[in-house]
Amino acid sequence: MTDEQALVLAQRDARGVHTLTLNDPKRFNALGSEMLEALQAALDAVASDADARAVVLAAQGKAFCAGHNLKDMAANPDMAWYQQLFTQCSRVMLSIHRLPVPVIARVQGMATAAGCQLVAQCDLAVASEEASFATSGIHYGLFCATPSVPLVRNVPAKRAMEMLLTGDFIDARTALAEGLVNRVAPPGQLDAEVEALVRSIVEKPRVAVAMGKAVVYQHRELGLEAAYQLAGQAMATNMMDEAAQEGARAFAEKRQPAWKTPAGGSGS
Amino acid sequence: MTDEQALVLAQRDARGVHTLTLNDPKRFNALGSEMLEALQAALDAVASDADARAVVLAAQGKAFCAGHNLKDMAANPDMAWYQQLFTQCSRVMLSIHRLPVPVIARVQGMATAAGCQLVAQCDLAVASEEASFATSGIHYGLFCATPSVPLVRNVPAKRAMEMLLTGDFIDARTALAEGLVNRVAPPGQLDAEVEALVRSIVEKPRVAVAMGKAVVYQHRELGLEAAYQLAGQAMATNMMDEAAQEGARAFAEKRQPAWKTPAGGSGS
Amino acid sequence: MTDEQALVLAQRDARGVHTLTLNDPKRFNALGSEMLEALQAALDAVASDADARAVVLAAQGKAFCAGHNLKDMAANPDMAWYQQLFTQCSRVMLSIHRLPVPVIARVQGMATAAGCQLVAQCDLAVASEEASFATSGIHYGLFCATPSVPLVRNVPAKRAMEMLLTGDFIDARTALAEGLVNRVAPPGQLDAEVEALVRSIVEKPRVAVAMGKAVVYQHRELGLEAAYQLAGQAMATNMMDEAAQEGARAFAEKRQPAWKTPAGGSGS
Repeated sequence: MTDEQALVLAQRDARGVHTLTLNDPKRFNALGSEMLEALQAALDAVASDADARAVVLAAQGKAFCAGHNLKDMAANPDMAWYQQLFTQCSRVMLSIHRLPVPVIARVQGMATAAGCQLVAQCDLAVASEEASFATSGIHYGLFCATPSVPLVRNVPAKRAMEMLLTGDFIDARTALAEGLVNRVAPPGQLDAEVEALVRSIVEKPRVAVAMGKAVVYQHRELGLEAAYQLAGQAMATNMMDEAAQEGARAFAEKRQPAWKTPAGGSGS
Repeated sequence: MTDEQALVLAQRDARGVHTLTLNDPKRFNALGSEMLEALQAALDAVASDADARAVVLAAQGKAFCAGHNLKDMAANPDMAWYQQLFTQCSRVMLSIHRLPVPVIARVQGMATAAGCQLVAQCDLAVASEEASFATSGIHYGLFCATPSVPLVRNVPAKRAMEMLLTGDFIDARTALAEGLVNRVAPPGQLDAEVEALVRSIVEKPRVAVAMGKAVVYQHRELGLEAAYQLAGQAMATNMMDEAAQEGARAFAEKRQPAWKTPAGGSGS
Repeated sequence: MTDEQALVLAQRDARGVHTLTLNDPKRFNALGSEMLEALQAALDAVASDADARAVVLAAQGKAFCAGHNLKDMAANPDMAWYQQLFTQCSRVMLSIHRLPVPVIARVQGMATAAGCQLVAQCDLAVASEEASFATSGIHYGLFCATPSVPLVRNVPAKRAMEMLLTGDFIDARTALAEGLVNRVAPPGQLDAEVEALVRSIVEKPRVAVAMGKAVVYQHRELGLEAAYQLAGQAMATNMMDEAAQEGARAFAEKRQPAWKTPAGGSGS
C-alpha cells in the first residue's frame, strides 16, 4: 500500500487509522504543487473510506514541512500561477477541516509557513520536543496570510501577530503553552503520545465523532443562540443512533458499551 | 426559603446574592428534566428580582454535576423526547447568559458533560482543587455538542477538541490554565474565594454590571467597528446613570462613591 | 519635531519608525478630548507617511495611561457630550487598527480603563515588570464597555469578564500569561525589547506587512472558507510585489534579499 518513491506515503491499519507521511525529506517536505496533489489524493481516499477512524499526518526526515516551495514560486512570477497554488493549498487545508475523522499532526521537526499552517489546521497535534514552528514567509517578503487563518483560530491574537510579523521560531513548549499543539513528547515517545490519542478516538463510535467534529466547527462561526440551536439538534440526532442507544443502555446497566474496545484490547 | 427536599435550593441574602444549589447528590446532580425545570424556575426568580446582584451556582455532595441523565435517555429512545430535553437544557444555559447579574460557578467536585457546560456557561467560575472536568458523553457514544458551545468560547480550540474527542478528565489546575475557571482554591477556601468575587461585584452599581455583561456578549459576536459602535453607545448611556454620575463626582472629589460599600462593611 | 509642551510627542527616525509619546504625566496621560485629538493627529500623520514602518506608542511618567478623564466627565453630565467623547476615542482605536504599519505599545506603568484598551488595541505590546493593567471604570460605576472590545479579542473570556467586573489590577506577568502583552522586561530593558520587535519589522518589506496586518484582522471576522478565499487572494497579490519576487529569488539563490538590512546594520 506504500510506495517508497511516493511524495505521500499512505498506510491504513485494521482499525481504519490512516497514516499519511510527507515523504520528500530532501526538500523538507515542501508543499509544491505535486506534493499538494499527492496529499489531496490521500485525503480524498480517507474521505471515501467509510470505515476510516482517524488520520495521523506525519513526515519523513528532519523537517515536518517547510511550507511552499519558494524556488518554484520564484520561477513562476505569474498571478494566475500563484492563485492556482494557493487555491490548491487551501483546498487541502479545507479537506482536513471537512474530513469526518479527526486529523492529528505528528510533528517531529520544523514546521514553517504552510507547514505550520498544516499543524494549526489539524484537529489535534502532538509535537516532539525537537519540533519548532514559524510563520516565516515574511523573511522573504511574503506574509503568511493563509497560514494565519488557522493560526489566529488557535493561538491568542498578539502571539499570532508576533509570529506573523517577525517570522521567528517558537519551540515546542511555547507552542504547547499557546495552544498550537496538544502535547509535547521526547522524540522517543512521540509515537506513543500520538497512539494514545488515536486509541482514545477509535474506541468511540465513528458517527458521533464525525457529527461532533462538524458541529463544533460550524457552531463556532455562529452567534450563541444559533449555536445552541444547531448543537441541540445535532445531539438529538446523535442520540437516535444505535451506538449512542447502546452507550446509554450500557451506562444504565453499569457495563461497557458493546461497541467499545476493552482496555488493552486489540483495537480491531 | 429553602426546602431540603427541593432539587434546587435557593437562598437569597440581604445583598441580593442568590445561591442556587443543585441538591440531588445521590444522582450526582444530574440534569434530568425535573432538575432542569427546578433550575429554570430558580433562574427565572432571579430574573424577576429587581434587586438581585449576583448568582452563585453551587452543588451538594461529591459531584458538581454529572450532566444529563443517561438512564432516562436510554429509557426514552425518541427523537421528540431528546429534542425537548436539549431545548430545555439550552434554555437554562441561555438564561444564565441573559441574566442581568453575573453568575459564578462554585465547583466543588466533578463537572461532566452538561455539568462541565454549566461551568463554561457561567460568567465566572471558582473551582476546588478537588474539582475535575470532562466532556465525557463521547464515552457513551454521545458527542457533547451542546457543552461544546460554551467550551470553545472559553478554551483554546485544540484543547477543547481534545476534551471533546477523548472525554478525558482535566484537573482544576489545568482548567485554570486553559481558561475554563477563574480561580482554584483548597476545598476549605472555596467559599472565601467565591465570596471575594461576590463582594467585589455587589460593591458596584447593578445597572452598570447589567449593561456590561450584556454588551460584552453582544459585541463579541460582531465585527470590530460594529462592536465599538455598540459599546460606545452603551457607555454613554451608562454614564448618564445616577450611579456613574456619583462615581465620577466621587473620583473628582477624591472620595468613595456614596453608593459604595466601605471595605469591611456589612454589604447591605 | 517634538514640543515639550505638546500632549503627544511625535518622533520619527530615519527608518520610518514613529514614536508617539503620551506627554501629560501629571494627569497620568488621561485621554481627555484634547489628548485624543493630539493622538488622532499623530496617528493621521503616520497614516500619511508613505515610508512609515512602525509605531511605538509610549508614555511619560509613572503611568502609561489612566483612561478617560473622570473629572471632565463629571463636569459634563450630557449624553451628547459622552457620545462625542466615546466616538472620538473609538476613532483613535480604529485608527490604530487600520494603520498600515504595526503599532507596538511600550507600557512602562499603570494602564487602566481606556489606557488598558490602548494596549489591547495595539498589534503588539511590551510591558515593564512594573506595569499593571485594569479595566477599572466599574469602581466608579462605569463599566469599561469600549475597553472590553479589544480585551475580549485578546484575553480568554472568563479572565476578561473578571477584569471587567472586579476592576482589579493584574500585573505584567499575568498580562503576559493571558495574552494581553507579548513580552515583559525589567524597566531597564524595556526599550531593548521594543527595539527588537521594531528591528524585526523594519527588516521586512512594508507592503507585505501592511497587507498582512489588514488581512488578518479582516479574515478573523469571517467564516473559515471565506477567510481562506480572502487570504489566498492576498498572498497571490503579495507574491506579485517586487519585494516578494526578490525574496523568493534570494531564497532560491541562498542569499539575503537585496531589500533586507544586514544583521547589525544601520537600518537605513
